[in-house]
Amino acid sequence: MLDKAAAFFRTLQQEICGGLERLDGVGQFVEDSWERSGGGGGFSRVLSEGAVFERAGVNWSDVHGHLPADMEGSSEPEPFRATGVSLVLHPRSPMIPTVHANFRMIRRADQEWFGGGADLTPYFAHVEDAVHFHSVLQAACARHDPAWYPRFKAWCDEYFFLPHRGETRGVGGVFYDYLGMASADLSPAVLAHSPRALEDAVDLERGFAFTQDIGSHFLDAYLPIVERHVDTPYNEEDRKFQLLRRGRYVEFNLIYDRGTSFGLRTGGRTESILMSLPPIVRWEYDHVPKEGSRQAELLDFLRPQDWLKLAS
Amino acid sequence: MLDKAAAFFRTLQQEICGGLERLDGVGQFVEDSWERSGGGGGFSRVLSEGAVFERAGVNWSDVHGHLPADMEGSSEPEPFRATGVSLVLHPRSPMIPTVHANFRMIRRADQEWFGGGADLTPYFAHVEDAVHFHSVLQAACARHDPAWYPRFKAWCDEYFFLPHRGETRGVGGVFYDYLGMASADLSPAVLAHSPRALEDAVDLERGFAFTQDIGSHFLDAYLPIVERHVDTPYNEEDRKFQLLRRGRYVEFNLIYDRGTSFGLRTGGRTESILMSLPPIVRWEYDHVPKEGSRQAELLDFLRPQDWLKLAS
Repeated sequence: MLDKAAAFFRTLQQEICGGLERLDGVGQFVEDSWERSGGGGGFSRVLSEGAVFERAGVNWSDVHGHLPADMEGSSEPEPFRATGVSLVLHPRSPMIPTVHANFRMIRRADQEWFGGGADLTPYFAHVEDAVHFHSVLQAACARHDPAWYPRFKAWCDEYFFLPHRGETRGVGGVFYDYLGMASADLSPAVLAHSPRALEDAVDLERGFAFTQDIGSHFLDAYLPIVERHVDTPYNEEDRKFQLLRRGRYVEFNLIYDRGTSFGLRTGGRTESILMSLPPIVRWEYDHVPKEGSRQAELLDFLRPQDWLKLAS
Repeated sequence: MLDKAAAFFRTLQQEICGGLERLDGVGQFVEDSWERSGGGGGFSRVLSEGAVFERAGVNWSDVHGHLPADMEGSSEPEPFRATGVSLVLHPRSPMIPTVHANFRMIRRADQEWFGGGADLTPYFAHVEDAVHFHSVLQAACARHDPAWYPRFKAWCDEYFFLPHRGETRGVGGVFYDYLGMASADLSPAVLAHSPRALEDAVDLERGFAFTQDIGSHFLDAYLPIVERHVDTPYNEEDRKFQLLRRGRYVEFNLIYDRGTSFGLRTGGRTESILMSLPPIVRWEYDHVPKEGSRQAELLDFLRPQDWLKLAS
């Protein structure tokens, strides 16, 4: 199953990169390969300075080895293998949201599972974008289990939250993990950070089928949003606000993201892991948007909301 | 003692800001005050868009309350009070190093101690800057105990290290903590991250005397380095390299710095804690300096070195 999953993720990487290149029209992905000293490796693809994307990174990896003893509550080094595709797209225009997606299969000791998700981070409050993104993800979930969208949507809202800012990273999407693992195998350490893992155990085949389905519909969820805003004009102030907001993206990834921390601690390739960081970022002391401005409107936007209800 | 320390730190904040304003000639510090909902508060001073400093932040705070139960190995919320001054100066010119310093007194339950330090982060490899900075710090240490400079210098090299990059943050300086606490009071959790705390226990009065001495000599360690480079020309490529290197500063502060994590987790004021982040930053995928370039020379520089021996 891991080999099949790895092959699927590699094909998905190529499909997504192809779709993004067609849309961008100018930028092209450059691929480089790397090996992990502890075992395995990957192919990183980066598009820089495109017409639409300032930086787009789409990583594929298939790594194995042993996990450090103190991770996830284990008392001794455990063998693991992890394969997946992970992407972050940073458009140049502040009118187009940043997007992140990740789909993976992991084996640790004798347990195997799938995880993944996709979430959208806009710079301006466009309700229709959030609605479209969530609609595509909801439909993908519904083809497998009607309970999954509300569960994975809530999981996403909880995961992509910045406590020190009191705001969500963006308008969310879906996030799932440990899909395919039996409830009895969930350790207390896992349940401490992911209580939603317990809600519904399914077999590994269903985890793979769902991961293939949602992965294959990622471009449907995102590209129409890009197309809607690609010609919208913006000014210097909009751009400056985007760079400030990108700072929150950096804060989330470096302080809270478990994928980043897992990668850096398991000897992952630093440049591929930190490819998620935006190309240029600002921090300003105590920046407060003017009341009633579009910038202030965004902050009101960044809390868990029932986007599909807003649409109806 | 905590009241005396708090008063000393507030005066030190004013002295340092005064010295920096005189040197900058254009920028002026703006002060704002804040209160911590759990108890206490502080005064943050920021100078933005000066002639020399792109951003300089000098914080003073005196906060108290209870620590979360899981911190530092404690099993229940413990009362604490922490007061100190903390600064990060980001010059505009890449020829001038960034500098950080922090001096503090902490009481947790019935234990009290001093901590602090200063470290220099250059963008280009100027040996004479590292030598000057370390000489002033070494002299301050030597007035109290000849064993302290080598001990605190090594502690700084260990603390300001980025494992995922395999490099030190800069050319170091000194770092000390738990000064004034009895060896028997050092918990296993503290010793796990700070084994050097055990090397030499002194009484609290000596900790305060040393903190006053080294804090009062911070400007002597840094200002001559600024003056040496303030008129040195630089080009666009130098500036771009500075912005990339600032990315490493962000990575260190958000991933590894215990002060940042302590502050964010104990309900500190986010804007004051993250004032340490540079105003503008770049990340570039897999940037590798040209062999033999000044940029490559810097990377060779960023490892623990005996700067004072290099000077003799």
